[in-house]
Amino acid sequence: MHKIPVGVLGASGYAGRELCALVAAHPRLELAFAAANERRGERLRVGARREIVFAAPDAVQLADAALVFAALPHGASAQWVARVRATGASVVDLSSDLRPGTRHSADGNGSSSDGSFDVSHLLTPVGEEGDELAPYGLTELAREQVAAARVVANPGCYATAVLLALLPLLRRGLVATGSTISVAAASGVTGAGFTPRPDLLFGEVAEDFRAYATGNAHRHMAEMRAVMAAFHADADLLFTPHLLPVTRGILATVTVELREPVADPASLWRADFDGEPFVEVAAEAPSLRDVVRRNVARIAAVPAAGMRRPTLTVFAAIDNLVKGAAGQALQNANLVLGLDEAMGLPA
Amino acid sequence: MHKIPVGVLGASGYAGRELCALVAAHPRLELAFAAANERRGERLRVGARREIVFAAPDAVQLADAALVFAALPHGASAQWVARVRATGASVVDLSSDLRPGTRHSADGNGSSSDGSFDVSHLLTPVGEEGDELAPYGLTELAREQVAAARVVANPGCYATAVLLALLPLLRRGLVATGSTISVAAASGVTGAGFTPRPDLLFGEVAEDFRAYATGNAHRHMAEMRAVMAAFHADADLLFTPHLLPVTRGILATVTVELREPVADPASLWRADFDGEPFVEVAAEAPSLRDVVRRNVARIAAVPAAGMRRPTLTVFAAIDNLVKGAAGQALQNANLVLGLDEAMGLPA
Amino acid sequence: MHKIPVGVLGASGYAGRELCALVAAHPRLELAFAAANERRGERLRVGARREIVFAAPDAVQLADAALVFAALPHGASAQWVARVRATGASVVDLSSDLRPGTRHSADGNGSSSDGSFDVSHLLTPVGEEGDELAPYGLTELAREQVAAARVVANPGCYATAVLLALLPLLRRGLVATGSTISVAAASGVTGAGFTPRPDLLFGEVAEDFRAYATGNAHRHMAEMRAVMAAFHADADLLFTPHLLPVTRGILATVTVELREPVADPASLWRADFDGEPFVEVAAEAPSLRDVVRRNVARIAAVPAAGMRRPTLTVFAAIDNLVKGAAGQALQNANLVLGLDEAMGLPA
Amino acid sequence: MHKIPVGVLGASGYAGRELCALVAAHPRLELAFAAANERRGERLRVGARREIVFAAPDAVQLADAALVFAALPHGASAQWVARVRATGASVVDLSSDLRPGTRHSADGNGSSSDGSFDVSHLLTPVGEEGDELAPYGLTELAREQVAAARVVANPGCYATAVLLALLPLLRRGLVATGSTISVAAASGVTGAGFTPRPDLLFGEVAEDFRAYATGNAHRHMAEMRAVMAAFHADADLLFTPHLLPVTRGILATVTVELREPVADPASLWRADFDGEPFVEVAAEAPSLRDVVRRNVARIAAVPAAGMRRPTLTVFAAIDNLVKGAAGQALQNANLVLGLDEAMGLPA
Repeated sequence: MHKIPVGVLGASGYAGRELCALVAAHPRLELAFAAANERRGERLRVGARREIVFAAPDAVQLADAALVFAALPHGASAQWVARVRATGASVVDLSSDLRPGTRHSADGNGSSSDGSFDVSHLLTPVGEEGDELAPYGLTELAREQVAAARVVANPGCYATAVLLALLPLLRRGLVATGSTISVAAASGVTGAGFTPRPDLLFGEVAEDFRAYATGNAHRHMAEMRAVMAAFHADADLLFTPHLLPVTRGILATVTVELREPVADPASLWRADFDGEPFVEVAAEAPSLRDVVRRNVARIAAVPAAGMRRPTLTVFAAIDNLVKGAAGQALQNANLVLGLDEAMGLPA
Repeated sequence: MHKIPVGVLGASGYAGRELCALVAAHPRLELAFAAANERRGERLRVGARREIVFAAPDAVQLADAALVFAALPHGASAQWVARVRATGASVVDLSSDLRPGTRHSADGNGSSSDGSFDVSHLLTPVGEEGDELAPYGLTELAREQVAAARVVANPGCYATAVLLALLPLLRRGLVATGSTISVAAASGVTGAGFTPRPDLLFGEVAEDFRAYATGNAHRHMAEMRAVMAAFHADADLLFTPHLLPVTRGILATVTVELREPVADPASLWRADFDGEPFVEVAAEAPSLRDVVRRNVARIAAVPAAGMRRPTLTVFAAIDNLVKGAAGQALQNANLVLGLDEAMGLPA
Repeated sequence: MHKIPVGVLGASGYAGRELCALVAAHPRLELAFAAANERRGERLRVGARREIVFAAPDAVQLADAALVFAALPHGASAQWVARVRATGASVVDLSSDLRPGTRHSADGNGSSSDGSFDVSHLLTPVGEEGDELAPYGLTELAREQVAAARVVANPGCYATAVLLALLPLLRRGLVATGSTISVAAASGVTGAGFTPRPDLLFGEVAEDFRAYATGNAHRHMAEMRAVMAAFHADADLLFTPHLLPVTRGILATVTVELREPVADPASLWRADFDGEPFVEVAAEAPSLRDVVRRNVARIAAVPAAGMRRPTLTVFAAIDNLVKGAAGQALQNANLVLGLDEAMGLPA
Repeated sequence: MHKIPVGVLGASGYAGRELCALVAAHPRLELAFAAANERRGERLRVGARREIVFAAPDAVQLADAALVFAALPHGASAQWVARVRATGASVVDLSSDLRPGTRHSADGNGSSSDGSFDVSHLLTPVGEEGDELAPYGLTELAREQVAAARVVANPGCYATAVLLALLPLLRRGLVATGSTISVAAASGVTGAGFTPRPDLLFGEVAEDFRAYATGNAHRHMAEMRAVMAAFHADADLLFTPHLLPVTRGILATVTVELREPVADPASLWRADFDGEPFVEVAAEAPSLRDVVRRNVARIAAVPAAGMRRPTLTVFAAIDNLVKGAAGQALQNANLVLGLDEAMGLPA
């Protein structure tokens, strides 16, 4: 059967390499190009006995691809999205450039907090003219918008974990009004990218653990708040990421106060994600090992004992490079291209 | 100069071994005995060229020691404390058996929440007759009680980190009434003891991260709540520990809402801990590497941006085996024995 | 298409679990039973959403399987092999019980050293009567014998790496007469099995590296020497294994003196392994990352500069649980069952 | 008591930082300056509550120091040694620039192999005029030369481990004539320096193990061969280093054939190193944990069973940053300055 050509920009980073490997193993896609600026000319093994060579970004024919994954640095991506769109190809953008809350305001904590969903909070205009809108590609939230789009803003890795943890509560308006959702999340080092920073050397990361972007300063807060706003959730968010001495994986530990007691909290997650191919609802707190190298989020909601107000700790684990980046990007690309959403994805 | 003989019960565990090494390097203490049940007869190198042999617990002369460190399993320690006390020797008990909130109720969230401190919450009766009281040996909180005691309940490792993080707020009644203190903490595997459990094998822990004792079920909650109650803090506590793929170290990430805005929050910690030899107040979030193999807690308080109510994230890092166990136990032993509190401790 | 039922004995160990996962993903096999003694009743997730429950070994119907993988402790396996054979089912035995050199002498360093191969060195009688012979299932060496056998002795993990490294030299009689083949090999901790030994705890293995079974004492030496003897190689073997702080993978660094200079040494390996689906010949020394989770051996032969006699360092990397255990076992099972040798194996 | 001012050039690397910490804790030394080029202006905590600031190399007054440690990149060090010597200060050079075999030929495998020692092989002329000779500062080999020198070439980390392992055999002429000493050594990543290379990122090193500088290409071979030549050892050396996923530590596994059988091999090491403060002779193979953060080499010699010729495996473990770099440099500096060799060193 004819294969659909797709390209990867930023192919030498961790997410880019993961994308190349996923595309190489995909039954209906083929790699039209894999571009990398600093590492052009270097080789990457994809699959058992196949190698690709990174092309210079300016040397690739964008028009060769029906869809392009842009795995470029934040800030550098938007212009490439525009260039790709000019060829008519679709784009899944893994940077934050087109995510909600980044380029337009999305802080609207509305008065109603009934879980009604206003998707307009999650559409970002593309390009100078802005006549095209990119949906926020948290697939389980925006499947229909993604399937209809030509440009998709792929969510941040932390945001994917936190939002899937919160979705059943947001949809039901169950987050207590005026409360604070407190999130401590931890990520493996590939989340920081394949950048030779001294603080990411093995000699610095091993046997260590530390918080960063403290004080609510992380880039992904904007998109998380945008989704909360889209659901009119009237709550604050306190998000603290940490750097783990592991290669892959994110665990988000989400503390959330409920508007009212819920008898069997886990049933909400089971109800919402029952048919989802890439969300697992577990009885016990998930661990990174449950999810690495898989395109899944594994979630458990645990009631906290000894609290005056009904409070849950919701745990969500993902592989930051798969469900948190390349896997979800491919999930969205499958939808954009009209393929089975699960095709070529390791569950 | 004459050296003071001290003994170690439970010497073969991680905390016990750390105690033996600290005692061996201490200028005024000497090891009278090191007892270990299952590992009796095994050798341990302490210092450069010296080895000790673990004795059977029933074979040691408890009376040989002026002070005994009990590093025994929870539940097994109380009876040994009584046996040691019968010889007249003092005890620092590293188990939870004599910690507040464990054997007597300490849940009294009082009406006043002005930071006034009621030490009676933190005294635990010792032995059958209970005519002796063991103070809770968080040294920076209870230095005077410890110095006057013959039995000290050494705090749990997590509790040490969390309570030192909270102390300046508790003392000033600054925790918001009715709020929830949300703590996500992570510990290296030595916190789980030197027990050959399958889930603690390298092959299971490496490249993993997971929460445990979820839903407010951890043993250390009782002592943390007892200290909160002693300060009449009217707040809930939600504590979630995680297992880190590192050998040593705890990082507690403590989210706390303030009763009122504080202009320069870090100044509270600096004020309270200025003269403390074993607490460091940092401008930036501490990491495990800052504290491993040192008897210090390193703390930073960071205001959270974008919150409706004044909220801090307070980070506290300790070495779970040093400030979280053996080091703090020696700090307390120094006080009980009338020595300089800092003697023999790696700062 | 009808699936062939296979069973796993010793299913809860690392190799056993890997076998269960491989069987679950195999297009032509299905799991008839998975037995584990100490962990009977526990659950194992195989694949995305499927769980199996370990049965008690005595409760399984051995006759339900057309082929049984025995992943049992050394010494315990032989009797189970006999029980399985009594039902008519085939067996791939992952223990050392049926490997050459273990139960019968195989030290015959013959006088001719021309690379001629005497397979009789590598056949082990099965059961009390010994009228059935188990070939040594280093697939790339004994493909035909395996395909014709009903019992196969699966090689040890280290032996797999070392022997594949040496095979082109052994076949050509190129190992220098009277020389010493010096092997330093290092394995991830899963090589030691899923056994809760204190020395395998994360707290003991992390940040460490050490040799073990020193002085030529490792169990796998017998089978390595047996293969050398089968080729009449007149050389000594010095083998030193080391324990790595990684989960999976073996790297064998093999120093070998040649009988005569070879112009392009790597060409020997390329010639021998050109059509092999599971051996990769590389220009540069392989690393564990090249092979983990794959059923391949990756090999590079590097001439040593500045030596009086022609000497090579041959590097071989495998995943100890895949090509070194479960993967090679499945490779052999495929042959025994008349299936494509590569079916269901991750290359 | 008056403290002796010493300086550190290249203070921001791993060895440089270790030197700063050792000097800060030394009872008779004080830090006159700590210079670092790219990281000038950055801070380093040395000891509990003290910080230093890295100066620009050209901004320091070399004459302020009585002795300077040069922890500079290979190639860049020699000129700084000359500049320091012009001020009259002594130098311990941690680079390879002044090590034997690097700048002058030292390949002379002599005819006699009786263990006689010709120190001239191990002296390197300093500066343009070359009228000053730097001894090779393997302290246990050249204690007297070091004590009399003003410039010392500190050995490479691998060379320190391998040569201490071999010294008792070299001294006795016990290495078999014409044999090959085969060394497989493995080092933690700090051995590669504090350089942000992509291949040293945590995400690349964790869960990996690989050889490098294969084919006898490592820089330290020259100095190892020079010492062999100084003892007229008539043997080849095959040295293969590997990169370990640990922060610190080297283990060298040295296979060596003996000229004649030795009844109790370990007794040779015990005899030679009995009075040495920084060499431990062990009955069992040492592990990295035995030596990290200590200025010791721990060595065990194990006879290999089943060999035609008498063969030993000698294991030597050191901390690459302490006995392999900064610690041995301080050991040498103590000698140069007329202090107790062991002063300020963690045994």
